[in-house]
Amino acid sequence: MDKKYMTRALELAALGEGAVNPNPLVGAVVVKDGKIIGEGYHQKFGGPHAEVFALEAAGENAKGADIYVTLEPCSHYGKTPPCAKKIIDMGIKRCFIASLDPNPLVSGRGVKMLRDAGIEVETQIMEKEALELNRVFMKYISEKKSYLFLKCGITLDGKIATRKGNSKWITNEIAREKVQKLRNKYMGIMIGINTLLKDNPSLTARVENGRDPYRIVIDPYLEIPLDSKLATFDNGKTVVITSENKMKDKKIEILKERNIQTVFLEGENFKMEDILKKTAELGIDGIILEGGSYLISKAFEENQIDGGEIFIAPKILGDSEAVPFIKGFEVDNINDGIELENVKINSYGNNVSMEFYR
Amino acid sequence: MDKKYMTRALELAALGEGAVNPNPLVGAVVVKDGKIIGEGYHQKFGGPHAEVFALEAAGENAKGADIYVTLEPCSHYGKTPPCAKKIIDMGIKRCFIASLDPNPLVSGRGVKMLRDAGIEVETQIMEKEALELNRVFMKYISEKKSYLFLKCGITLDGKIATRKGNSKWITNEIAREKVQKLRNKYMGIMIGINTLLKDNPSLTARVENGRDPYRIVIDPYLEIPLDSKLATFDNGKTVVITSENKMKDKKIEILKERNIQTVFLEGENFKMEDILKKTAELGIDGIILEGGSYLISKAFEENQIDGGEIFIAPKILGDSEAVPFIKGFEVDNINDGIELENVKINSYGNNVSMEFYR
Repeated sequence: MDKKYMTRALELAALGEGAVNPNPLVGAVVVKDGKIIGEGYHQKFGGPHAEVFALEAAGENAKGADIYVTLEPCSHYGKTPPCAKKIIDMGIKRCFIASLDPNPLVSGRGVKMLRDAGIEVETQIMEKEALELNRVFMKYISEKKSYLFLKCGITLDGKIATRKGNSKWITNEIAREKVQKLRNKYMGIMIGINTLLKDNPSLTARVENGRDPYRIVIDPYLEIPLDSKLATFDNGKTVVITSENKMKDKKIEILKERNIQTVFLEGENFKMEDILKKTAELGIDGIILEGGSYLISKAFEENQIDGGEIFIAPKILGDSEAVPFIKGFEVDNINDGIELENVKINSYGNNVSMEFYR
Repeated sequence: MDKKYMTRALELAALGEGAVNPNPLVGAVVVKDGKIIGEGYHQKFGGPHAEVFALEAAGENAKGADIYVTLEPCSHYGKTPPCAKKIIDMGIKRCFIASLDPNPLVSGRGVKMLRDAGIEVETQIMEKEALELNRVFMKYISEKKSYLFLKCGITLDGKIATRKGNSKWITNEIAREKVQKLRNKYMGIMIGINTLLKDNPSLTARVENGRDPYRIVIDPYLEIPLDSKLATFDNGKTVVITSENKMKDKKIEILKERNIQTVFLEGENFKMEDILKKTAELGIDGIILEGGSYLISKAFEENQIDGGEIFIAPKILGDSEAVPFIKGFEVDNINDGIELENVKINSYGNNVSMEFYR
């Protein structure tokens, strides 16, 4: 076993970012006599798995070779035949695996299939890195809830808009470019109805060859204007989450006619956890929360934020009537506040961000 | 002329940081036949000037050599004979100067003395770097006001304390170490009476071989408790700035007996500019503002902040009753807010800072 091959497999896996969801990112490397003879990664949703690319690149040379793969090879017949079978058929001698399948129903089955066929298998190699790479997938599969990533651009005094609601622009262009990349990485963007009413955003990704994200609005009282961009410009992936009490509202029919999905939850004060379960049911593995203070505060209060990036601009409003990014808590001691974990500092010109993951 | 020698002279100058105030930082390098034959810097207040060290190190070899000096050599007989005279006497051929003396009464005199003696003089070499190095001195001499540097440690939502006034600790140890270095760099620390009443700080520098800063309290109503640390622990450099209306207060006598300086200003709502003029009169060239929101807001409102470093911790209070670092402004559009200039991002573990200068 040589870590450098798993490192390479992880690099390959990352190339699929933004194109494979809600599938996991997977990379594979076939090695023989200290030389890489085949490489591959899962390139797009529904396409062949990483192992297939790597094994086919190696061809007959794969016989007696080692394979390094970042996720346990699948053992079931799905869109493609099981990768474990292909590894066996190609005559691989040893198989090195970073992380096991997070689905408890199938986890370990791939390994068993390989071992039963006499292949030497070693697991949990660079597992930490592999789990980090697939944070979104791991949560989505194991908890059946969408992964929630907070994106927020604030002034130095923690505001997201002035007292008049003006918010263009707090962060600089370099930071906003990064936001476009995040929008390409996650399958969905979530906002609250207040943000929709105030900004009337289109929530499209502006990355070249990028993918349009699911646009999710939390709208308990079904206030979405029928002439808003989200209600008129159909990308086939708009979701309005509203109250069961609005089920028979005429607006619902109109939204449906416009190809907009509607999701119903009990009452009006939704739990973020319930929202994330519903979005997971729609097949959305991860969501960027671009909400205003209401949704951000709710998500923090319920401890439902899995990670995030908070961009800080060197601007100050100094106005207690300006809109804070978070509110509603009552904290007596500094140590009782929210403390972000695993913080990484990123610079974007004169803007800076704190990226964090639990 | 070779910039590398001026770069070296600037490096040398910086070595005097924290020890020469309210004198400027100055470095000098003597060069002959492409070789450095003498180096020096102003090492401590009242000690020999940079040129003296450099020329004496060069000795008789200085004859026919070049000298690079970061500030115009002095031309007056003060604590030491004028450096311009020494440069002439040692037989220097050419003199390269970064920045001229900021004092309009003497600026250019050193250059003239040298030229009158037949020395070739070139000025404004790497002037920008030299002016930046002596920001504090330049303002102090040219405006007769102390330089004001904001230091502030905030949560991500811009708070400096909880609703109960708890503020220990917002920033991490690495960031707090940097604060100790700043306290050593600037001659004074300024706080408001509210910070004194709440925290009862001692405001000492904890840098090894460091110097105790002047401790300046803005206390319009003379509320300073006689048993507070600042009023009892005498470092000979405590200054209480209060109202003229308090001139005959019995407390004033007690403070004077305790070797505490008192400064009087008109009314109770002091202008920061007037405060900085008074502190300059006391010979304090630069001050770190460690105040609470009242002083910080006042200083920003009057546009009296010359530079600063705002440390941000990955903590969130989310409490509108917590203490913001700045308040009292009314801003409708993002672009009408305060925008920090010349921002530099510094990382301190999971804390980050924005350092800025006008």
